Amino acid sequence: AKVFKVAVLPGDGIGPEVMAEALKVLDTVEKKYDVRFERTHANVGGAGIDNEGKALPDTTVNICKTSDAILFGSVGGPKWETLPPDEQPERGALLPLRKIFGLYANLRPAIIFPSLTGASSLKEEVIAGGFNVLVIRELTGGIYFSQPKGIEGQGRDRIGIDTMKYSVPEIERITHVAFQAARKRGKKVCSIDKANVLSSSVLWREVVTGIAKEYPDVELSHMYVDNAAMQLVRWPKQFDVILCENMFGDILSDEAAMLTGSLGMLPSASLAEGTFGMYEPSGGSAPDIAGQGIANPIAQILSMGMMLKFSFGMVDAADAIDNAVAKVLDQGYRTRDIFQNKPGEKLVNTKEMGAAIIAAL
Amino acid sequence: AKVFKVAVLPGDGIGPEVMAEALKVLDTVEKKYDVRFERTHANVGGAGIDNEGKALPDTTVNICKTSDAILFGSVGGPKWETLPPDEQPERGALLPLRKIFGLYANLRPAIIFPSLTGASSLKEEVIAGGFNVLVIRELTGGIYFSQPKGIEGQGRDRIGIDTMKYSVPEIERITHVAFQAARKRGKKVCSIDKANVLSSSVLWREVVTGIAKEYPDVELSHMYVDNAAMQLVRWPKQFDVILCENMFGDILSDEAAMLTGSLGMLPSASLAEGTFGMYEPSGGSAPDIAGQGIANPIAQILSMGMMLKFSFGMVDAADAIDNAVAKVLDQGYRTRDIFQNKPGEKLVNTKEMGAAIIAAL
Ligand SMILES: CC(C)[C@H](C(=O)O)[C@@H](O)C(=O)O
Ligand SMILES: CC(C)[C@H](C(=O)O)[C@@H](O)C(=O)O
Repeated sequence: AKVFKVAVLPGDGIGPEVMAEALKVLDTVEKKYDVRFERTHANVGGAGIDNEGKALPDTTVNICKTSDAILFGSVGGPKWETLPPDEQPERGALLPLRKIFGLYANLRPAIIFPSLTGASSLKEEVIAGGFNVLVIRELTGGIYFSQPKGIEGQGRDRIGIDTMKYSVPEIERITHVAFQAARKRGKKVCSIDKANVLSSSVLWREVVTGIAKEYPDVELSHMYVDNAAMQLVRWPKQFDVILCENMFGDILSDEAAMLTGSLGMLPSASLAEGTFGMYEPSGGSAPDIAGQGIANPIAQILSMGMMLKFSFGMVDAADAIDNAVAKVLDQGYRTRDIFQNKPGEKLVNTKEMGAAIIAAL
Repeated sequence: AKVFKVAVLPGDGIGPEVMAEALKVLDTVEKKYDVRFERTHANVGGAGIDNEGKALPDTTVNICKTSDAILFGSVGGPKWETLPPDEQPERGALLPLRKIFGLYANLRPAIIFPSLTGASSLKEEVIAGGFNVLVIRELTGGIYFSQPKGIEGQGRDRIGIDTMKYSVPEIERITHVAFQAARKRGKKVCSIDKANVLSSSVLWREVVTGIAKEYPDVELSHMYVDNAAMQLVRWPKQFDVILCENMFGDILSDEAAMLTGSLGMLPSASLAEGTFGMYEPSGGSAPDIAGQGIANPIAQILSMGMMLKFSFGMVDAADAIDNAVAKVLDQGYRTRDIFQNKPGEKLVNTKEMGAAIIAAL
């Protein structure tokens, strides 16, 4: 049997609960396919701070380095909110992980399942039949990581400085990811920028336009970020793949995710060159419901599915997981966050949802 | 009678049509109040390019300089979209106007009138009773104007660079605008930043928090920009005044405006220190319906009302205009963009809407 090494980083809040279900699904995958997953657990986020003194302990980094992929839960919570930003769970863990492992391509699907349109704040007529947008966000460049960055001067003379820089190769590689993804779906890429104001956007638009010529089967359009924030609300179905630089992708992928109304359903992948990647739910650690066993494990399970597909090339197994999730939704299984009290719905807890998905597999 | 000088810049697309109605309302204000408005028309945007060779001709700048306020229509259209970004109507006119006249405070109300909730893409239950958010956007700093900015290097070695800088005084003055506005409304300011990633945001948050102490009657909260993009969709009524730096304000004010479903209704003000300001509709030049006499003049008329209030201190006249607009909406008058074919609605064109508002005054 093939052996893959997985670094398991459950993190904080509902992270450990939903991770437990994802790992059970992984057990089932081992049984169905000729494969073995060697799992090493490690601390991250608040759990890292509490147990090893920092959000991303060195032991955790080393475990990730000797693994083929990272399965990540979620981090953060009120307990650590008073720490300096650099040391907080989100920033202190996520940004270094992205940088250390070169996770430049963030794939964030915003999918509204036809049976769950009721959960969206959008009108039924706007989302009838659901929608399926894939935001591809550049994750290791731009204003997140470029220098100079910092606060200069003293007292009232201080100036806060950030820099948004993009090089041609940085834009090229993320553009290829977007076009390759579009090829396998709706064959449309909408590239987001603010080329009427930003120089980095002027370069972005030019490079994206150039790369697009290598994909004559995929349609390219450009949209300003402010307009995109509007168009997502007005008519999300107009989009297939949305390609963004880091900051715009942060904002628009969250907006798109919220439009689906079911954050607990959305997985994400952050990919390096090659097959290494980190996989995590799009929603947060939801400290308000942590420990109650009621969180929705679907996002974590779908994230694990993305790991099978992108890091281990197990496309069939990933599809089987997607189908199993669709099936349990059709069967009416609902955790509290997606329960609408409609005929045929069965309210279940985290473990029951996990079990239903395993049964459907 | 008091005399105020107004630079009238109708611009492109529907600009001249809706401006004509706003000026008729201004005539009515002259008759009702002891005041005279000396108006000087000038070219801007595409009209500037076509008639005087650039989007913001020197004659126009001079006319604005000798005026007490600028009443602006809208600029842009397909005809000028192939020009280099710097020369295009939007960028070539708006950014220099903001800089030359120090228009640092952009006030963009996103109001959904109870009678128009049907036009929003949000569910009735999310917006029942309407909502009223005021986005206050810093307009002359941040990544729009800071240096270095440009594209360096050659060929594939090029790097696109933008800089987001904020000084303490820049943050202080816009914060005062937000708190003073909140005092006159819902007494809540939500300050938007990305302090978990950006140094300029760390400074922003600290300065805003400091200024807030001078306004103990106003409640301050902080929200990350990605979360704000979500929260606007989820529950817009949670917001009163939203305070943003330039780029975040660009994105969130457009998102909030679209959530109302009636862009043609939303005015905006861009204020300098003192009483000078520029007033313009939030929507664009709508070239697709230009020249047909069907555009909604309400945003332009309400923008003119903001001018009366902020530049000329005519609060009563501004309120009268707001009330007249509310009245014609209650009476069922609808331009095509807000017509829903409900009982009691009367479909009217631009001129008829203008006349109805004047009658209601
Ligand atoms: C926690 C924060 C640093 C992070 C980001 O801005 O990238 C988060 O919002 C995300 O989208 O993963
Ligand atoms: C046209 C553009 C430069 C402008 C901006 O980004 O500020 C516009 O989007 C706006 O919001 O007024």
